[in-house]
Amino acid sequence: MEKIQVAILMGSDSDYNIMQKTEEVLDDFNVKFVTRVLSAHRTPTQTIEFVKSAIKKGVKVFIAGAGGAAHLPGIIAAHTTRPVIGVPILGKSTNGLDSLLSIVQMPSGVPVASVAIDGAKNAGLLALQILAISDEGISRKLSDYKKKLEHEVLTKDRQIQNKSK
Amino acid sequence: MEKIQVAILMGSDSDYNIMQKTEEVLDDFNVKFVTRVLSAHRTPTQTIEFVKSAIKKGVKVFIAGAGGAAHLPGIIAAHTTRPVIGVPILGKSTNGLDSLLSIVQMPSGVPVASVAIDGAKNAGLLALQILAISDEGISRKLSDYKKKLEHEVLTKDRQIQNKSK
Amino acid sequence: MEKIQVAILMGSDSDYNIMQKTEEVLDDFNVKFVTRVLSAHRTPTQTIEFVKSAIKKGVKVFIAGAGGAAHLPGIIAAHTTRPVIGVPILGKSTNGLDSLLSIVQMPSGVPVASVAIDGAKNAGLLALQILAISDEGISRKLSDYKKKLEHEVLTKDRQIQNKSK
Amino acid sequence: MEKIQVAILMGSDSDYNIMQKTEEVLDDFNVKFVTRVLSAHRTPTQTIEFVKSAIKKGVKVFIAGAGGAAHLPGIIAAHTTRPVIGVPILGKSTNGLDSLLSIVQMPSGVPVASVAIDGAKNAGLLALQILAISDEGISRKLSDYKKKLEHEVLTKDRQIQNKSK
Amino acid sequence: MEKIQVAILMGSDSDYNIMQKTEEVLDDFNVKFVTRVLSAHRTPTQTIEFVKSAIKKGVKVFIAGAGGAAHLPGIIAAHTTRPVIGVPILGKSTNGLDSLLSIVQMPSGVPVASVAIDGAKNAGLLALQILAISDEGISRKLSDYKKKLEHEVLTKDRQIQNKSK
Amino acid sequence: MEKIQVAILMGSDSDYNIMQKTEEVLDDFNVKFVTRVLSAHRTPTQTIEFVKSAIKKGVKVFIAGAGGAAHLPGIIAAHTTRPVIGVPILGKSTNGLDSLLSIVQMPSGVPVASVAIDGAKNAGLLALQILAISDEGISRKLSDYKKKLEHEVLTKDRQIQNKSK
Amino acid sequence: MEKIQVAILMGSDSDYNIMQKTEEVLDDFNVKFVTRVLSAHRTPTQTIEFVKSAIKKGVKVFIAGAGGAAHLPGIIAAHTTRPVIGVPILGKSTNGLDSLLSIVQMPSGVPVASVAIDGAKNAGLLALQILAISDEGISRKLSDYKKKLEHEVLTKDRQIQNKSK
Amino acid sequence: MEKIQVAILMGSDSDYNIMQKTEEVLDDFNVKFVTRVLSAHRTPTQTIEFVKSAIKKGVKVFIAGAGGAAHLPGIIAAHTTRPVIGVPILGKSTNGLDSLLSIVQMPSGVPVASVAIDGAKNAGLLALQILAISDEGISRKLSDYKKKLEHEVLTKDRQIQNKSK
Repeated sequence: MEKIQVAILMGSDSDYNIMQKTEEVLDDFNVKFVTRVLSAHRTPTQTIEFVKSAIKKGVKVFIAGAGGAAHLPGIIAAHTTRPVIGVPILGKSTNGLDSLLSIVQMPSGVPVASVAIDGAKNAGLLALQILAISDEGISRKLSDYKKKLEHEVLTKDRQIQNKSK
Repeated sequence: MEKIQVAILMGSDSDYNIMQKTEEVLDDFNVKFVTRVLSAHRTPTQTIEFVKSAIKKGVKVFIAGAGGAAHLPGIIAAHTTRPVIGVPILGKSTNGLDSLLSIVQMPSGVPVASVAIDGAKNAGLLALQILAISDEGISRKLSDYKKKLEHEVLTKDRQIQNKSK
Repeated sequence: MEKIQVAILMGSDSDYNIMQKTEEVLDDFNVKFVTRVLSAHRTPTQTIEFVKSAIKKGVKVFIAGAGGAAHLPGIIAAHTTRPVIGVPILGKSTNGLDSLLSIVQMPSGVPVASVAIDGAKNAGLLALQILAISDEGISRKLSDYKKKLEHEVLTKDRQIQNKSK
Repeated sequence: MEKIQVAILMGSDSDYNIMQKTEEVLDDFNVKFVTRVLSAHRTPTQTIEFVKSAIKKGVKVFIAGAGGAAHLPGIIAAHTTRPVIGVPILGKSTNGLDSLLSIVQMPSGVPVASVAIDGAKNAGLLALQILAISDEGISRKLSDYKKKLEHEVLTKDRQIQNKSK
Repeated sequence: MEKIQVAILMGSDSDYNIMQKTEEVLDDFNVKFVTRVLSAHRTPTQTIEFVKSAIKKGVKVFIAGAGGAAHLPGIIAAHTTRPVIGVPILGKSTNGLDSLLSIVQMPSGVPVASVAIDGAKNAGLLALQILAISDEGISRKLSDYKKKLEHEVLTKDRQIQNKSK
Repeated sequence: MEKIQVAILMGSDSDYNIMQKTEEVLDDFNVKFVTRVLSAHRTPTQTIEFVKSAIKKGVKVFIAGAGGAAHLPGIIAAHTTRPVIGVPILGKSTNGLDSLLSIVQMPSGVPVASVAIDGAKNAGLLALQILAISDEGISRKLSDYKKKLEHEVLTKDRQIQNKSK
Repeated sequence: MEKIQVAILMGSDSDYNIMQKTEEVLDDFNVKFVTRVLSAHRTPTQTIEFVKSAIKKGVKVFIAGAGGAAHLPGIIAAHTTRPVIGVPILGKSTNGLDSLLSIVQMPSGVPVASVAIDGAKNAGLLALQILAISDEGISRKLSDYKKKLEHEVLTKDRQIQNKSK
Repeated sequence: MEKIQVAILMGSDSDYNIMQKTEEVLDDFNVKFVTRVLSAHRTPTQTIEFVKSAIKKGVKVFIAGAGGAAHLPGIIAAHTTRPVIGVPILGKSTNGLDSLLSIVQMPSGVPVASVAIDGAKNAGLLALQILAISDEGISRKLSDYKKKLEHEVLTKDRQIQNKSK
């Protein structure tokens, strides 16, 4: 049985409608992951315990989605040297600047890799790119995926060219 | 001997030139405090340990200064039900919005009391106001302090009135 | 009969749908409060009178919600040395930055404790944390509340783990 | 002796280097003014008393400069139906957005006329424009001033045309 | 017949749903006004002609609402020494910052009095405050209006006190 | 047969509802254009190939609409010395600041002409203004268009004058 | 003698240190220009007169630099169908957002082509790109310039490669 | 001889004083890298060629620093499935928001991992974390580095404790 390679965390289950796009892209690549709702502020002990046990079980990349004062990715990064990808979640105020800045402006020594606001799909792809460095299979699939993206745009391109004639 | 009532934390010693204004105001009120450099990201375990031991020793209010992705106040709040006051520290980019939003936009259930960017002095005064609820001595000194503030403004007022004549 | 410990103010009754979350959390803890609609700009005299009389009646913490040029928390703070908690209310423009900055950027000497934009529930919890310093009963309930929060997250965590399998 | 027509207030004497530009322009027009350092937060009672007595003495326009959570213009407006002009003062963080939004985003019913960040000179000119409605002398001087402005630009225009040849 | 004292301008008729709040408040005070749709960019010549003829006809205050690159108030101010009040109109992007900054950040020598984003009612009140300096009737009505505002808040205050019991 | 003079590009077909306003204005002026969906990130090679072939075929102006990290206009500008007009498309977060800044803040040596957020119509008009420099026919139509704009505002002006009477 | 093809305007001579970069790049291409200090607010009549006379004399492109409430480019665009390029000038507050938004957010029908904040050099290059559409000589020089830019980067590239070895 | 594993790119040599912090941290870990000055806009062809050749030579991670309309990281990501780390460089205007948003707000399908504004050191550490997934040596050194960071904070902690006594 293949091992879990990616851990997806979110601070609240209300973030799940965004974060399942991370799940979908990992599923498409047949990469095993675990998804957890664990809060940096409401379940700090369980969050740290999970991070530590996940590392032991061989998790290679952490992906954390969080809104507002989005501390979850940073807290994970504090407890591991594995790459941590942060997904800023758009909230009702400040237009996403709160979660983006809380995630990306990490202090020297403890990086978090931030993707776009609500960029859960790209977080999954970035994890796959990281895994692909030592996994030829994922690497090939990423090349195929890039071609598929290209193909999709070109299809839309033809449709618009017809529409705008 | 009087007990330590306030714990002052900062994520980096470069924040000390700001945070010593908190020390000064507590000193003026003869309230005992402890000052620690402990990082949410670089010393997460020691930070949590300190918070837990400080609570046991009777610390009543936590004050934490942090810049950038300023997670320190939130992490402290995750581990205590004591009031936590956050001081956003101005950095080189984003004009203080990064630390302000990282501190103030806390999720429901785990409040942090944010003061102004670089507002370390007011953090100390807010701690004193909190302590004053059950400490008549501090309460009286706060009233005196308010009168002193008033007096200072009125002195400046007279100087400007003379100057602008 | 227990005395009123917290005063909740708002500048306009349109803020009540947000501010009643403060009432709910105080009710949950059986802490008595009074709620008033008093404006820093439309009823300045009554606002100040209320603050002064509230202090005399033993109110220990003030919570004020306000939007736009949100001066209410600051004006209260000008007339008391009791802790004042400000709740920035989201308006139609500037994404909450107007009320947040109007509340949090107080001058040296007169602190206001700002919570998140629309963070009325956390304002109530912060008031309870402040009262808990000298009230063992509230303190115990806050510990229970923290466990309940933790429990809620862990329940959601199990649900998501099942869903994402 | 001519009566005081304009009251200039500022929350702190550190704002005086900006606010004296208001004094200069009023002096140029021989309009009498009084300048006071009075804080909405540190001397709230004296501020209100001054506003009330100034109205009685015939002050027609109030100009208030303030930085950070700039409540002074709004507080004056709460106590008078005379026009109140607010000058947002640039501080060290948030690039002037804090004082601008605190001044300009006033609630319905209680207007403050905001000028540009650090726009103390224009605050004086706006006061003069207001007074000029019922003062033919000021009105004529404003027309002359507008011609002088025009003349200054045209002089600079000739200098640049020579320089850039 | 009473003369037109206030001119209300807007750059586009889509701003009328906001700007009619200016009309309503002037109507309430029986102050005559004229409302025009004139654009700084699409009808620059007619705008300037209107301003010049309005001044001749005795218009005392100009109020201009504009969104986006909101140049209309500034262009009016360029052609008159009468007070010009700008109303920044909220658009679909930048949350009102574009029109606010375009209106308020006027250069030295040519002031515009900015009110809040979408603050058309306050623009009317500010115009009334300006007229009231030399019009005892308006002045008295403004005092009554201030009392009415106060009364409205106090009524809401009683309602909320009953509701939150 | 008249040659294609303008190329309209967009990074995603979801931008088409905005960008077709560019098409409409070019159609109104009988200026031939081609519309393509080509992404700076998903079809970089085809984008560059298209730009190069478009230049050879005599395209004189490029118009590119893009949202988020809006690199498309800049990438086109990297491969041509023809004028490139960028249309920042409003997205769900950051209120259009992301696409605006990504388009307008180009480095020295490689300009992009930015229009307003979602300003696709103005992008078309700007292209026409550029073509009109060497095309008397377009130049005349632009003068007519300017008169039509003026006429439309004046019609609205009369309607509002009637309505507000 | 070659005719003036570009008009450079700025609202204040304090903008000249930025705007002379526009002059330099036009000089490098031997394109004749005129530079004027004319303010949308302080010399509105002369500004419009200049624009009208410049069009008659055959000026093909207008470039206008302005800070704060930067109305100059928009006012020029209101009076011509020639392309107008706006250069937002960085001021002391709001970090350039005031002039950028005042310039770029033009209403439908009256475009201004905005370049980067302080992007005076690119404004000149954009004007040259516009002129090059009907001027083969400028077109060739722009291709050479693009190669020079490329060469400069590659030279720096070699220096850094040596330095970082 | 060990192979080059990381490619560091920057759009201008003026970014080198920031980006050499990436070099230093890679040097500390004895990871081979190449540093190039290549611009997305001034040397687009060479940039793409370099990316393609670097992939062939086995480069595993790309790090790109860029300011303003910071397209470089995105353009690299368009041409590779290797992880691309973006370093937003602080410029003179917009306080770093331009480069941050240009880098982080990438469209779906083409991720860039953004670190903090001027966060070149963390970009290096993130690259090391990525490499460490399949390199036990780097992984161990990262653990040591984390301990060193911890140790540094604790040393500062003791110094401050002594100072603030």
